[in-house]
Amino acid sequence: MFPVKVIGKAAAPDSRTAIRAADGVQEQWRVPEETPVALVYNRRNYAVMLATPQDLVDFAVGFSLTERIVGSVKDILGLDIIHTDRGADLRVRIAEHYLELFDLRQRRRNLPGNTGCGVCGLENADAFFEPLPKVATEKTSLNLSAVSKAIEALPGRQPINQQTRSVHAAAWVNYDGSILHVREDVGRHNALDKLLGALALEGVDIKNGFVLVSSRCSYELIEKAARSGVTALASISSPTGFALRKAAEANMALYARTATGVGELAC
Amino acid sequence: MFPVKVIGKAAAPDSRTAIRAADGVQEQWRVPEETPVALVYNRRNYAVMLATPQDLVDFAVGFSLTERIVGSVKDILGLDIIHTDRGADLRVRIAEHYLELFDLRQRRRNLPGNTGCGVCGLENADAFFEPLPKVATEKTSLNLSAVSKAIEALPGRQPINQQTRSVHAAAWVNYDGSILHVREDVGRHNALDKLLGALALEGVDIKNGFVLVSSRCSYELIEKAARSGVTALASISSPTGFALRKAAEANMALYARTATGVGELAC
Repeated sequence: MFPVKVIGKAAAPDSRTAIRAADGVQEQWRVPEETPVALVYNRRNYAVMLATPQDLVDFAVGFSLTERIVGSVKDILGLDIIHTDRGADLRVRIAEHYLELFDLRQRRRNLPGNTGCGVCGLENADAFFEPLPKVATEKTSLNLSAVSKAIEALPGRQPINQQTRSVHAAAWVNYDGSILHVREDVGRHNALDKLLGALALEGVDIKNGFVLVSSRCSYELIEKAARSGVTALASISSPTGFALRKAAEANMALYARTATGVGELAC
Repeated sequence: MFPVKVIGKAAAPDSRTAIRAADGVQEQWRVPEETPVALVYNRRNYAVMLATPQDLVDFAVGFSLTERIVGSVKDILGLDIIHTDRGADLRVRIAEHYLELFDLRQRRRNLPGNTGCGVCGLENADAFFEPLPKVATEKTSLNLSAVSKAIEALPGRQPINQQTRSVHAAAWVNYDGSILHVREDVGRHNALDKLLGALALEGVDIKNGFVLVSSRCSYELIEKAARSGVTALASISSPTGFALRKAAEANMALYARTATGVGELAC
């Protein structure tokens, strides 16, 4: 693991307390935080995301991998997390040749993203149609009761969401449906980046389980999962048509909950 | 109203039918579509969003206003909607001086966004901290039962979501809680842009009602609403802390549903 240095304290807490007046009643209520988090590679600004300021090491790793800045955790040489009154700077050190290799200058997004933003900043719409890597030669088949079990257990594993009721989660689940890791964020794709970063840091075998997300399954989640080698993805809410087509291209199995149960979805 | 020309047909339907196998049962299931939608001003690419390909005239207008490309509908001279097999091009014609005035070249986002992306592409994180305009001298006060009434009525006014269960909506509601306009999209901020565009096209008095969104209330929704003069915004799920602070800055009233009812939220 690379060295991590943390400077300052997170300006924004996990959640804030707001006064709520319903029917004349004043009550305390927790709201989730979102704060600007800048990704900086060897002193070059790449992106600014709005994110929940938790698990920022995982986030730096996951984002760097799913954005293909580096190929593996070993390529990250160091990370400084600098908290300011405006947010957090994640200063990632990587070998200089990665900047050339991945053409960071051209692809860089010296531009703010937000909690709902996962693919902004690439050159043009062609990026959406770039073929995804095959994650398996044959599509993985999950046990439907394992998927149901994980979906039922997920709310109990979302501490920030239990307080605030408005934060997404991404979970790593083994084939019998046991949840092993969970990461939370106001942004769906940030939660997934944090989870994928944590799995990479722990050296988890990505072929030995599946990802469950608390949201709908849209294109950028498929892209991030496919680039990390995830073979099956389950979502609480439906995938979009575009997500289904991209998952089929990657041989990734998609599962979702609907009114009548849990099922596998095909194009 | 400016002239609109539509070329081709939408390549992607509103929703697609997927085979779902739960407990061995095969059933048809509708999924929402998301498709690349490019915003082009006077032949210059500005952004590519992933959006539900419905109400694209409203989307072009709302996006142009909330991005501050133009100041009002009158500044839009024409719109061509060109459907291709990859998505839709929205070619907006505006007076050339707007390109200079709003420094489009520098701010332009010749970059794809996605369904969850509302603020990508500005110069840097400072954009998040730019003060929002005041929408009122004193914060509007809504009738809590009117907010509850609208929240209860919203699901019945979301036809795409009724089929697919995974699409957001933004609604325009009068002060007695009656829903007057609804727009849907897989992206929260796209739904809001479509609604704000529709209101601008219909010449609705923005001081005469409030906006209700089916999602959480994050920063970029506050920004879009404030720049359109919306005085009160209600959300099904919680605002973030950052959204609360930005709404306070704009004198915008925020309401949300929680476990115990509907209430106004303050910092």
